[in-house]
Amino acid sequence: MKNRIYIIGMGPGKEEMMTVEALEALEASDVIIGYTVYIKLLGERFAEKEMMTTPMKQETKRCRLCFEEAAKGKQVALICSGDAGIYGLASLMYELNREYPDIELTVIPGITAACSGAAVLGAPLNHDFCVISLSDLLTPWEKIKKRLIAAAEGDFVIAIYNPSSHKRKDYLMRACDILLQVIEEERACGYVENIGREGTKAVTCTLKELRETEVNMFTTVFIGNSNSSIVNGKLLTKRGYQIERNTDICRNN
Amino acid sequence: MKNRIYIIGMGPGKEEMMTVEALEALEASDVIIGYTVYIKLLGERFAEKEMMTTPMKQETKRCRLCFEEAAKGKQVALICSGDAGIYGLASLMYELNREYPDIELTVIPGITAACSGAAVLGAPLNHDFCVISLSDLLTPWEKIKKRLIAAAEGDFVIAIYNPSSHKRKDYLMRACDILLQVIEEERACGYVENIGREGTKAVTCTLKELRETEVNMFTTVFIGNSNSSIVNGKLLTKRGYQIERNTDICRNN
Ligand SMILES: C[S@@+](CC[C@H](N)C(=O)[O-])C[C@H]1O[C@@H](n2cnc3c(N)ncnc32)[C@H](O)[C@@H]1O
Ligand SMILES: C[S@@+](CC[C@H](N)C(=O)[O-])C[C@H]1O[C@@H](n2cnc3c(N)ncnc32)[C@H](O)[C@@H]1O
Repeated sequence: MKNRIYIIGMGPGKEEMMTVEALEALEASDVIIGYTVYIKLLGERFAEKEMMTTPMKQETKRCRLCFEEAAKGKQVALICSGDAGIYGLASLMYELNREYPDIELTVIPGITAACSGAAVLGAPLNHDFCVISLSDLLTPWEKIKKRLIAAAEGDFVIAIYNPSSHKRKDYLMRACDILLQVIEEERACGYVENIGREGTKAVTCTLKELRETEVNMFTTVFIGNSNSSIVNGKLLTKRGYQIERNTDICRNN
Repeated sequence: MKNRIYIIGMGPGKEEMMTVEALEALEASDVIIGYTVYIKLLGERFAEKEMMTTPMKQETKRCRLCFEEAAKGKQVALICSGDAGIYGLASLMYELNREYPDIELTVIPGITAACSGAAVLGAPLNHDFCVISLSDLLTPWEKIKKRLIAAAEGDFVIAIYNPSSHKRKDYLMRACDILLQVIEEERACGYVENIGREGTKAVTCTLKELRETEVNMFTTVFIGNSNSSIVNGKLLTKRGYQIERNTDICRNN
């Protein structure tokens, strides 16, 4: 049997927001590898396990460490925040897999920030939506700009990841300026900081207000579509159910 | 204290893919309300609970039932597949909440099909992506078409929900034809049927092949972006990590 690495999405932060299979995979592992912050969030339950961390910005190193440990015959778990397939390490792990063909990968999905943040704000996504990262470390800003415009023109709800960092304090403002070329100032928006962690903070606002807001890197931002509104402090996107007519037409939800 | 309804995303199907907090909320509830299929997927563990189901297409009725039961003082859990905020009932519940102001809602996020399907296929999302439903029951087809084009022009990976139904057998083909106006025939794609349920089936293919494929309604379809490819049977979207240079630049994953 091939050695196997579990690539685990741990959700936004707290253990209760992990899936049962993610917890079981961690239990079954000999060594847990991840960015220091996530290893710490795991807390006491796995304290007995061997833990290996690499600092931020050393993702390739971290992934190679997984393969090297697995090659020794250890059962390895690589943990990512949210879902490992969304701005996480799943894709890089598969790329590196070519160099370590004897090791098999299993991705265990987790709750991504778009879903966990939406739950805090109300129901902003509830129709077609886009997920866009404002980080231009791996994507040219021109491409990000193009995607923001395409998303606005398509009337998608937009969930923005990586809205800010130390070096990119004005990126959310720049993104809002781009969106304002297509969307009205009063568009319903919101953001959530520290989802599923201590200090969760949810705010609803207009796009104009969002433009004036400085958020930190632990924040997910939501831009409503033309059917979104703020009702009793919740950010909602109507899907077009006709409550009155009493003819329900959504299937399979 | 106000009565509270939990709106629970149960993930793609099997219990292990539910979060701990979703299971705890079900445990804490007096009555579990949902579409028959999902109630059945829950299986033995909650067999002691009062269960109430309404048939498909009766979503408003189902939601009202939740409020009526909660008004009696019961702790109510409404279950949806995947994430309740994505083509689920979260938004309709908030709309109806105005009629039942004494009842408070809590959305408990779940693993949505885009994430669970991506995990089966490999790592297709691993960059900016869109989620689009092909159901035109609540959205005019013209709007769906506009969104497909916007998504393709923005070079987003696209996860397609509701790709088919009895009455709309050719919708995926029609969607592919629209996408083919912008995207090349050889674009890497894939789809997953029955994620997290019996009979899971994952297929990778080109956009041209996808056009010729008939999928069923329990399928989530993935259209790669210009950085996607099929490697060893897995659908991967490169994020632009520079493995060689060994300068890792992704933060906070
Ligand atoms: C590199 S991405 C990782 C995303 C992660 N894989 C996911 O699926 O949620 C980091 C960004 O995700 C968002 N994010 C992740 N966890 C979060 C949390 N607990 N609270 C708020 N935002 C979060 C923020 O936008 C942050 O800048
Ligand atoms: C009304 S939507 C509900 C989506 C759900 N709330 C979610 O977040 O996954 C139904 C569509 O979701 C997708 N879907 C939901 N569960 C699935 C599963 N277990 N396997 C494959 N596709 C699924 C399919 O595209 C299906 O047509």
